[in-house]
Amino acid sequence: MKCEQDFVNFLEKLKSYNSSIIKGIGDDCSVLKFSNKSKYVFTTDTSLLGPHFTRDYSPEDIGYKCLATNISDIAAMGCEPLYAMYALTLPKMSESWLKRFYKGSQRLLKKHKISIVGGDTTKGPLSITIQMIGIQKHRILMRSGAKLGDDIYVSGTIGNARAALLSRKNPTSFNYFKKYLINPTPRVNLGLEISKFASSCIDISDGLAKDLKNIVTSSNKGFKVDIDKIPLRTKFNQYISNKNIEECILGGGEDYELCFTASKKNINNINDISNRLKIKITKIGCITSEGYNYYKDGKAYKVKTKGYDHFRNK
Amino acid sequence: MKCEQDFVNFLEKLKSYNSSIIKGIGDDCSVLKFSNKSKYVFTTDTSLLGPHFTRDYSPEDIGYKCLATNISDIAAMGCEPLYAMYALTLPKMSESWLKRFYKGSQRLLKKHKISIVGGDTTKGPLSITIQMIGIQKHRILMRSGAKLGDDIYVSGTIGNARAALLSRKNPTSFNYFKKYLINPTPRVNLGLEISKFASSCIDISDGLAKDLKNIVTSSNKGFKVDIDKIPLRTKFNQYISNKNIEECILGGGEDYELCFTASKKNINNINDISNRLKIKITKIGCITSEGYNYYKDGKAYKVKTKGYDHFRNK
Repeated sequence: MKCEQDFVNFLEKLKSYNSSIIKGIGDDCSVLKFSNKSKYVFTTDTSLLGPHFTRDYSPEDIGYKCLATNISDIAAMGCEPLYAMYALTLPKMSESWLKRFYKGSQRLLKKHKISIVGGDTTKGPLSITIQMIGIQKHRILMRSGAKLGDDIYVSGTIGNARAALLSRKNPTSFNYFKKYLINPTPRVNLGLEISKFASSCIDISDGLAKDLKNIVTSSNKGFKVDIDKIPLRTKFNQYISNKNIEECILGGGEDYELCFTASKKNINNINDISNRLKIKITKIGCITSEGYNYYKDGKAYKVKTKGYDHFRNK
Repeated sequence: MKCEQDFVNFLEKLKSYNSSIIKGIGDDCSVLKFSNKSKYVFTTDTSLLGPHFTRDYSPEDIGYKCLATNISDIAAMGCEPLYAMYALTLPKMSESWLKRFYKGSQRLLKKHKISIVGGDTTKGPLSITIQMIGIQKHRILMRSGAKLGDDIYVSGTIGNARAALLSRKNPTSFNYFKKYLINPTPRVNLGLEISKFASSCIDISDGLAKDLKNIVTSSNKGFKVDIDKIPLRTKFNQYISNKNIEECILGGGEDYELCFTASKKNINNINDISNRLKIKITKIGCITSEGYNYYKDGKAYKVKTKGYDHFRNK
């Protein structure tokens, strides 16, 4: 669930009529309290031909990816996904397309035991809006909890989705990166584990630079990040030219890895989770009192990329 | 929340992983149980340029109508709307458009005390998907509870939205009908009142004939309806030609009135509710064991219209 800042500013002015809203606009999910026991998180994401998938995606790929992006929002809140509702706008009603679309979704529905509880169908240009509901298991992670001196971590490797997009004309390179673009893995188990202690979390969907900024803006802090520490796949530098590296690892969105902050005392715990879940977790910097400070080769580095903006990027 | 039958059939085959799902696919809303106390209802609806609004709708009109259709789904379940999430696909991000769009929504948000709890923005052809969450107050109404011998009622007057569409070239006639097309009134209070005793309910969004069929198919029954009893606005016959009447009152969707069934003993109660809420409620027929039987001028009448189908209608 990502709104451009204009829309967030706009929505934040709206009146809330209900005291059970723990968090409304401005995080990966909204948080609602339905009973004394548990809080639930809600997210909605639209996937369109163009910004989210291209004509060469199979119906299976579309079914997988538009569900994965919603699950990733739930993972970023440290919660467990439960229910999905599908609002499909389709150029025509094709049972075979739906079957293949669903087959792509099914891998994730099964893995995470998510039930589809409703839907709406409309005729028009292909567009898929999924609403997802998740439940709190431990603590709920927000963007706003980062504390001065906390370490900043990212899961997996960064920049692969944008690297795939930039490699479309080079089959060897594209093959090396494409599964990260087309079949990203939402980090649900990791989100649940770190929710026990992390101070803030976001999923990297609009590019690390923009998402880091989201964390520190919400937390009223700054950051210091060592670009050399951002984890890349082994052959990343072999396929991506120097001039495109920054765009891939800081600007490129759609990584769907988690970026989170935690106090220094959790280092052993984090190593243990990394070993247990077999997910690389890398410290890339720390929370400061203000500013967005990047370092490269030990020197301050000025970042040019702004991250993905639906209304400004092509 | 309306899916074409192909999609309903498809979704119904899906595995449910959660025992708190009271009703999944196939009603105006799905029903989920979050605590021992209350059940919640969920719906999602997409509104598009073309099938749902045209270029002459103002942003205020669009903001009003796409929210009204979602509220109407909650009303049809006899529940109270609580929260909305907006997934907006916009050709460009315009603050003034958003302000006007929201101004149109605001009338309904304020009237029903609905809080917007989340959103997503994407660049693309104008499309608005709203998800809405409502709460059970008394009983939850479904399509499936109609009993043999129950009376069939509709609220308000029928056929006005389609009459407006057919009158676009005749300003006097269009003015007479247009508010029913552009600013329909979701029947929340009526839904809450009848939820205490009604046996089934649906909102008339795809045309009375199709929605009546939905009730009796879900209830495994039939119906007998007297077309002459279907309530029309005073000047309806003055503006709509004989050949179009059936299409307006049985085929035309978007009335957003409630069609419900109740046992005969509730007649006084229904009259009392009608007086109290100042909403016309008319008995138009009764539930039979099978068949879709219409009468006109005391004789059996064969209905030609099939109701609105997003993938078959123009």
